[in-house]
Amino acid sequence: MKKFQVVGIGNAMVDVLARAEDSFLTDAGIGKGIMQLIDMDRAVELYGMIGPAREVSGGSAANTIAGIAHLGGRTAYVGKVKDDQLGAIFAHDLRAQGAVYETTLAPKDAVDETGRCLVIVTPDGERSMNTYLGVTEFLTSDDIDETQMAEAEWIYLEGYRFDGPESHAAFAKAISVCKAAGGRVSLTLSDPFCVSRHRDAFRAMIQADVDLLFCNRAEMLSMYETDDFDAALAQAAVEVAVVACTDSGNGAFVLSEGQTWHVPAIPTDIVDATGAGDLFAGAFLWALTHGYIPKDCAHIGNIAAAEVISHIGARPEADLKVLIAQAGLKPAT
Amino acid sequence: MKKFQVVGIGNAMVDVLARAEDSFLTDAGIGKGIMQLIDMDRAVELYGMIGPAREVSGGSAANTIAGIAHLGGRTAYVGKVKDDQLGAIFAHDLRAQGAVYETTLAPKDAVDETGRCLVIVTPDGERSMNTYLGVTEFLTSDDIDETQMAEAEWIYLEGYRFDGPESHAAFAKAISVCKAAGGRVSLTLSDPFCVSRHRDAFRAMIQADVDLLFCNRAEMLSMYETDDFDAALAQAAVEVAVVACTDSGNGAFVLSEGQTWHVPAIPTDIVDATGAGDLFAGAFLWALTHGYIPKDCAHIGNIAAAEVISHIGARPEADLKVLIAQAGLKPAT
Repeated sequence: MKKFQVVGIGNAMVDVLARAEDSFLTDAGIGKGIMQLIDMDRAVELYGMIGPAREVSGGSAANTIAGIAHLGGRTAYVGKVKDDQLGAIFAHDLRAQGAVYETTLAPKDAVDETGRCLVIVTPDGERSMNTYLGVTEFLTSDDIDETQMAEAEWIYLEGYRFDGPESHAAFAKAISVCKAAGGRVSLTLSDPFCVSRHRDAFRAMIQADVDLLFCNRAEMLSMYETDDFDAALAQAAVEVAVVACTDSGNGAFVLSEGQTWHVPAIPTDIVDATGAGDLFAGAFLWALTHGYIPKDCAHIGNIAAAEVISHIGARPEADLKVLIAQAGLKPAT
Repeated sequence: MKKFQVVGIGNAMVDVLARAEDSFLTDAGIGKGIMQLIDMDRAVELYGMIGPAREVSGGSAANTIAGIAHLGGRTAYVGKVKDDQLGAIFAHDLRAQGAVYETTLAPKDAVDETGRCLVIVTPDGERSMNTYLGVTEFLTSDDIDETQMAEAEWIYLEGYRFDGPESHAAFAKAISVCKAAGGRVSLTLSDPFCVSRHRDAFRAMIQADVDLLFCNRAEMLSMYETDDFDAALAQAAVEVAVVACTDSGNGAFVLSEGQTWHVPAIPTDIVDATGAGDLFAGAFLWALTHGYIPKDCAHIGNIAAAEVISHIGARPEADLKVLIAQAGLKPAT
């Protein structure tokens, strides 16, 4: 038995959550519903414009790993924070959830700080993200622990993490060690604009190494540069063993071994959409590594996504195991 | 017209909120429902024991001032944070709510950090507080701006702020300048154990200077060292022009000009009791400085308290002005 079922690699950051009207997004020049990268000056400017906020550990893959840990999975996370107060908050929350987190801290005298994401939540529950990467941008191959990668049944790579000077090398190292030890590779495309920035690198990785691809409709269309969703899904299924593509209120599509399943979303009131895709992926991976068939993995993913969008913050608050048990799903193996 | 309706002085801190079962309190040696002072070592130890948390600006008087600002009152706050990330969060949230906050920061190289309060919320919604004061303990007379105190219709003094080497001198300066300029003084007793620590100083201040006393039943009984609530209320009413004493689910008692009113609580599901007394005081002071009679001030205080205990965090999330308007209360003047 490998030590970890899933090891995630992503951008470590603390979410700064504030509510605002849609007009605020226009006034502040924020693109709605997407992730935009900002520098420290812009982060300070925006922070000065938003109302009272609350701080919650975030980071896309970190939310996924927190979800797996919450469900009792054996999991670890790799992502860089600084030796500062926000870094301590990030590390605490991940460990307190039960995940292993041992990435070397950026030192106190590093120029950048721990990354943060200013998340503006509009009345419709949509989140518009403004990300100051900070030290998480500078994760290098040296931060990839070969032993940990070899001990992973799956690694989970965050598309956002492709930004930054040494990201590709770090991912290449993780993939090579994981695969050599018989592990498998999952990737999330993260965001349609992230796909635009890194389409060729994503495509090469998908074709060569990825065994499980997470994305949503917009990312899928951007990936294959088409408006034809079915065609894009079909193409992805040719290239990857398992494709899990969420489609917002329409639920998720899973393609595996020549089959396609559509798994409806769980109806819920959307308070804050932050983390829906992250928790879908986390619960899906937990289910996959616990013997559920892909269709049920997507169902379990939808349950987790519905829970996390029903409250502010991108990590589970209700007991997902209870919600999954209530759905009556059982592992196949 | 004075620049400020209310200027509050208190312990500036960020709340670290985590949920736990009652058994956790026993295991961790935490007294339920009270505030206990802890040092940095204990803060680190406890933080290592709690689950994932969220960070929200807190501090008793700061919550009160945030409530007044939320209601549109002209208000300022005095309390010490460090030039660190938690200090920046505290300052941002207060200013973003509309309060003036200009206290000099403790420098980056100060030994202590910005204060924080580890709040354990049990399933019954009760909060058990573990406070590391940090730099807020070292607020001195030099931090009291005479111009600001002279510009206050009311100052609001937090009982918790009596802990710390130069607290009494700082309060004495604030009172003297405020009163000399025709302002009035309100005080909250904060916590029964805080009353035990500072009973004589509180009593002297109450008899000499306090025009409006906030407390709850336990604090009132501790203040007058009796089990007879009615007798304690009566004694307080002899010493202070207006007494506003909350009594948990039983609402609040107001005593003024020989009259006593009992104002029932607003029924609500308690999610997190943190900030109930703080927001009662904030809304009461807002109402008092906007021409409402004392009985209606308590009613408005109860509305604010009910809102803040219906969610996690000690500052208002719903629009309190709407809730107050719905209650149909009108200023007398």
